[in-house]
Amino acid sequence: MGCYQQLIERFQQISRLDHAITYLSWDQMVMMPVKGNDSRAEAMAELASIRHHCLTAPEVSEWFDDVDNKGSSAWLATEQAMLREMRRKWQEALCLPAELVRAKVVAGARCEHGWRQQRPENDWSGFLENFKPVVELAREEAGHRLEVAGGQLNSPYEALLDLYCTGDSLSLVESVFDVLRSELPSLLQRIQERQAGAGQGLSGHYPVAAQQQLNEKLMRCLGFDFESGRLDQSMHPFSLGTAGDTRITTRYRTTDFLDALNATAHETGHASYEGGLPSAWKGSPLGGHRNMCIHESQSLLFEKQIVLSRAFCRFFTPAIHQLLPDSKAYDADALWNANTVVAPGFIRVEADEVSYPLHIMLRYEIERDLINGKIEACDIPELWNDKMQGYLGISTEGDFNQGCLQDIHWTDGGFGYFPSYTMGAVNAAQIFTAIKNEHPDWQAELEQGELGFIRHWLSEKIWQKGCMLESQELMVSATGEASNPQHYIRHLEARYLDRAY
Amino acid sequence: MGCYQQLIERFQQISRLDHAITYLSWDQMVMMPVKGNDSRAEAMAELASIRHHCLTAPEVSEWFDDVDNKGSSAWLATEQAMLREMRRKWQEALCLPAELVRAKVVAGARCEHGWRQQRPENDWSGFLENFKPVVELAREEAGHRLEVAGGQLNSPYEALLDLYCTGDSLSLVESVFDVLRSELPSLLQRIQERQAGAGQGLSGHYPVAAQQQLNEKLMRCLGFDFESGRLDQSMHPFSLGTAGDTRITTRYRTTDFLDALNATAHETGHASYEGGLPSAWKGSPLGGHRNMCIHESQSLLFEKQIVLSRAFCRFFTPAIHQLLPDSKAYDADALWNANTVVAPGFIRVEADEVSYPLHIMLRYEIERDLINGKIEACDIPELWNDKMQGYLGISTEGDFNQGCLQDIHWTDGGFGYFPSYTMGAVNAAQIFTAIKNEHPDWQAELEQGELGFIRHWLSEKIWQKGCMLESQELMVSATGEASNPQHYIRHLEARYLDRAY
Repeated sequence: MGCYQQLIERFQQISRLDHAITYLSWDQMVMMPVKGNDSRAEAMAELASIRHHCLTAPEVSEWFDDVDNKGSSAWLATEQAMLREMRRKWQEALCLPAELVRAKVVAGARCEHGWRQQRPENDWSGFLENFKPVVELAREEAGHRLEVAGGQLNSPYEALLDLYCTGDSLSLVESVFDVLRSELPSLLQRIQERQAGAGQGLSGHYPVAAQQQLNEKLMRCLGFDFESGRLDQSMHPFSLGTAGDTRITTRYRTTDFLDALNATAHETGHASYEGGLPSAWKGSPLGGHRNMCIHESQSLLFEKQIVLSRAFCRFFTPAIHQLLPDSKAYDADALWNANTVVAPGFIRVEADEVSYPLHIMLRYEIERDLINGKIEACDIPELWNDKMQGYLGISTEGDFNQGCLQDIHWTDGGFGYFPSYTMGAVNAAQIFTAIKNEHPDWQAELEQGELGFIRHWLSEKIWQKGCMLESQELMVSATGEASNPQHYIRHLEARYLDRAY
Repeated sequence: MGCYQQLIERFQQISRLDHAITYLSWDQMVMMPVKGNDSRAEAMAELASIRHHCLTAPEVSEWFDDVDNKGSSAWLATEQAMLREMRRKWQEALCLPAELVRAKVVAGARCEHGWRQQRPENDWSGFLENFKPVVELAREEAGHRLEVAGGQLNSPYEALLDLYCTGDSLSLVESVFDVLRSELPSLLQRIQERQAGAGQGLSGHYPVAAQQQLNEKLMRCLGFDFESGRLDQSMHPFSLGTAGDTRITTRYRTTDFLDALNATAHETGHASYEGGLPSAWKGSPLGGHRNMCIHESQSLLFEKQIVLSRAFCRFFTPAIHQLLPDSKAYDADALWNANTVVAPGFIRVEADEVSYPLHIMLRYEIERDLINGKIEACDIPELWNDKMQGYLGISTEGDFNQGCLQDIHWTDGGFGYFPSYTMGAVNAAQIFTAIKNEHPDWQAELEQGELGFIRHWLSEKIWQKGCMLESQELMVSATGEASNPQHYIRHLEARYLDRAY
């Protein structure tokens, strides 16, 4: 067997280990009883360690050397892309000591598991105890990653960011953030003035069982196939899996049904991307998702561009009325108005599109300084409160549940992820603008619940590309330009000032 | 690190892989969407292959050699038992080629997955296609196992039986079967004569959600801790897991609630044993269950000795009445009468205690001849029908759903398991006789729902022993004698002829 084929087989083996790790994680978050956690953490650490060993074994290095010796002209374009992505995964793993990989899994599982109890109990100090080792290990990881990157990355934080925004530089991310930082505050103010007094919550009782049916119906409308996926409940909605078995979670409140629907739409976007990746490259790095800025663009496109549109709201309102009788007090316009209220709040995942990036700025600034060693974990609550007041004008003092304990992201050391959300929102607006330009009758289609043209476009231009192109190449090939925040600004103006769609 | 400690660490690693395999299997059977199966089968095969590799690596052989070189006097009794059990697991694995291990997982997963559809569709020929490779691989496995056993085992079938009835010889099993074969038919006839006309089914509608609550309540009464386990639904009830996370499944019919309760009681017995194993030896072969003849004795003790007793029925009837209003038409005596009807039927898992061993004879004789090469897979339906007529006087011709497709056991190549059920029933009667002798007021205790004395006895004499003793040593130490079918016969006479408890 040639060295290229050896590499392919090794990565197939790794994808089988990833499969095990993926569904055991799902089980841990959705199904596992509380006392199962210690054994689970040990088993997950073992799998992570075996995976690391498979990926960093000496023969892998030899195969890459053999590939290099043949020279790039020996390889087809697809093979070159495959080698680039395999090498990327390899180097990501190679730079970390096996012991660090194992320690990260154990510390992350403990922190995440504790968080489930600590959040409702508002127990910051209990959380902090488990969180400090997570931060220490993340800094250690960032140091190793920075070292192997040579001069390509400029700070420990950027070394972690590159795991999620792979190929998108921190300077690109910051240039996008600069535009948003200069535009959003005034836009937010204008929108709030325009909406003054218009914000109406929905009252009523919405039973969980009926909401679950409604969310499943939404997923079917969005093209989800329940023979290759599931919907369940968890405290923090998430999506995970690969084609054939994509699993999403949402959460239900009996006083509000929009929250669950929005989360379900979001996670269905993630699942659609995973389910739509090229099957010919299944189990190889080339067949995976491009990066999290693209991944989040798919979830936000489903949530904000499709499901939050006035046209789709008109289409879906009868289903809501049918399954949730109390909702009949609200027609499609009232539902759309309720779902497009712009009001800064505590919880990022419930934030409106306008204030959402401000939540991200807050997270980004804190995690950047934390990883670069400018602040410590114990400084977070105060900084959180300061920035929350600065960006959104609200106080979270002493309220950790709605403050820095509100979500799961930092518990397992996933620092560097947050910018993907805003890059995703920017990309989503840009991609949907391109789709709308090609399909001027898009609103009429959505009003019929006809989404085929969107799924077709995304499949062809995003999903089926896998990792053939780098992230910005993909944006250019799909939309004609690199990530450009102006599309997002224009989208916010059209929806929230002009009330256009 | 010494060779003994090296072995201990390696087996800990293997137990972490077993953890992954265990909960991925549960997911596969209970949660996984249908299109996820191919990837799951590949991942499971990969894990099985890694496990096999860890267990059979050359260094393991060297560690065992080092241990041998030190001589048995170097080791404490516990260490000697640990070494005996580690060696047993090692030899079980060592005799199989890695390729066979992988092929078995893939073939078993395909067959089990297909069976889920084929059973309701009565599709024997579809099943047969997937089943033939399972049989071929099992025969191959039996051949390898027989070869390494030297003269200790006398047939390919016995080599598989020893995986489940570990330490109990086929001649012991056959001597028990001989007694039952000579006693049960006449006993069955006498009981049926005595019960003639007394059998009353239960009519009514019993909603699944309420039954689920009732089954959870039963589990709590039996001592199950929902912080370290779950109850779910599956087509064929099963139990799996280890201390901290034991998971059982049951199934519900809206026309009958006893079926689910009996299955839940059975699986709770299995889970109690796993949950009660000695934590000091957790993750080592010494800390595992003894064999399946002991495991099934625990499940049958919970199901048949405790929950089916008249006293427990009196205690639990108010809970049934409360959650299932239609059941109020039946008082405790009527429920007990309905649950102790002896009537030969098609389905093993629903069989009464008297005819159950006859189902087992049928399975045992078929699987023995299948593995020993005296019959082929395609012969099964005809043999099944003949033996069903011979043992139980009923025909299954053309009805595969209620015949040879009725359960999951053979789908993954688990031949040699069935005798454990009857050995378990025999052991359960014997163990419960010992408990009753020590606790003459057992019926008064059960009528109060007080089961602590039973769990305490079992914990001390069975659960906490792990694998310190061989199976028959354990029976002698707990009950004063080796497995003796006379206790079972006397139990059946007392319950079904004398109606004593």
